[in-house]
Amino acid sequence: MGDTAGGDVDSAVERLLAADLERRPRADARRNVRRLVVAARAAVAEIGVEVTAHEIARRAGVGIGTFYRRLPSREALLEAVLADTIGELVTAASRAADDPDPWHGFCEFAVAFVRLRSASCGINEALGGQCRLALDAPLAELREQVRLLVGRAQSAGVMRQDVAWQDVPFLLASVMTGERTIGLRADAEQWRRNLRVVLDGLATTGPVPLPGSPPEEPAGVQAATAAE
Amino acid sequence: MGDTAGGDVDSAVERLLAADLERRPRADARRNVRRLVVAARAAVAEIGVEVTAHEIARRAGVGIGTFYRRLPSREALLEAVLADTIGELVTAASRAADDPDPWHGFCEFAVAFVRLRSASCGINEALGGQCRLALDAPLAELREQVRLLVGRAQSAGVMRQDVAWQDVPFLLASVMTGERTIGLRADAEQWRRNLRVVLDGLATTGPVPLPGSPPEEPAGVQAATAAE
Repeated sequence: MGDTAGGDVDSAVERLLAADLERRPRADARRNVRRLVVAARAAVAEIGVEVTAHEIARRAGVGIGTFYRRLPSREALLEAVLADTIGELVTAASRAADDPDPWHGFCEFAVAFVRLRSASCGINEALGGQCRLALDAPLAELREQVRLLVGRAQSAGVMRQDVAWQDVPFLLASVMTGERTIGLRADAEQWRRNLRVVLDGLATTGPVPLPGSPPEEPAGVQAATAAE
Repeated sequence: MGDTAGGDVDSAVERLLAADLERRPRADARRNVRRLVVAARAAVAEIGVEVTAHEIARRAGVGIGTFYRRLPSREALLEAVLADTIGELVTAASRAADDPDPWHGFCEFAVAFVRLRSASCGINEALGGQCRLALDAPLAELREQVRLLVGRAQSAGVMRQDVAWQDVPFLLASVMTGERTIGLRADAEQWRRNLRVVLDGLATTGPVPLPGSPPEEPAGVQAATAAE
């Protein structure tokens, strides 16, 4: 998912430049803010919301002095970056709502939601409420989109009626599992198989075949099973 | 799940006493080992596998000297306790295999597996391979039981054929989610609703109604939704 770290950063850049004390930021100010936003997006995906201003400045190739001359705070930068990423999910949900097939639209959104959570440690923390950043407005927008999508699928009769839209984010958050359980090792795509089962459990129609391959057994067990 | 912390400890006690240097442990030695096993079981559930020997001794009301006089190591105690707990899952799986209804049996095992993971931090770490304790034998036994249970349900035609038995532990591990996501708060029983959807996604028969109630919205959103 290359677009998680590298994706569109312009709205965060504009938001942060609008907060700049200078009325018309010079080209080099804009360039530095842009580099800091790109670096923050990658660092927050990789490290999470506890990433330091020094680490972001280092990755952006600017000094810590420039960081604090251009940005009000580390938190303001992270909030702008994470609000943008949540905004991408809101966009994915709006696109899903325009899909002529309500179930197909919902499934596409589900994949976008899980992929983004699995690709970005920081967005995962932000969506899980594990950070103190001010993200209430973008999260409220995302909840509203999920409510509409689920309502649309239920009105069309393609999603079970007894599930609440509030269950759906928890169900989608659930499909990302650790890579090991009871001694079995899963590959990085296990979430697609888990998601397929969850979607089939939500759908009113028949099951869709599972993608990918199952988790691996330890070498010894595999041999024992094969020998039977 | 009161039986997680307090449950049957005798097999761990016997195993540890067998390792004692004395051929016939005195009554007070047995009593101390028993107290340490009971304390370790509760502490490992609450704190996890990193719990210290001092903490276990403190909870058992014995000195650290007694701990090391009676037990070969902290690891040996934790291994005995966790092997016992995994053994309970093996027993639950055998009981499930005796259920005349293969799907009902499988569902009962699924609930036992998830409840134990959610009730014990330490067993969750042990099943997830997040500790270096020697638990290969009980884990191999558990895998074998899961393989048999899944095979039985598939042979009976009540579980989808394209799922591998190795997928099932990951699916069951997935249903425990955090208590918050995108600003919604779930209660401690959300896993039952998630599990219902996963089981319906695995079953070849129709869906079963969801238990419990959906996650809560923040107060503001609830009012806004109600006002529509």
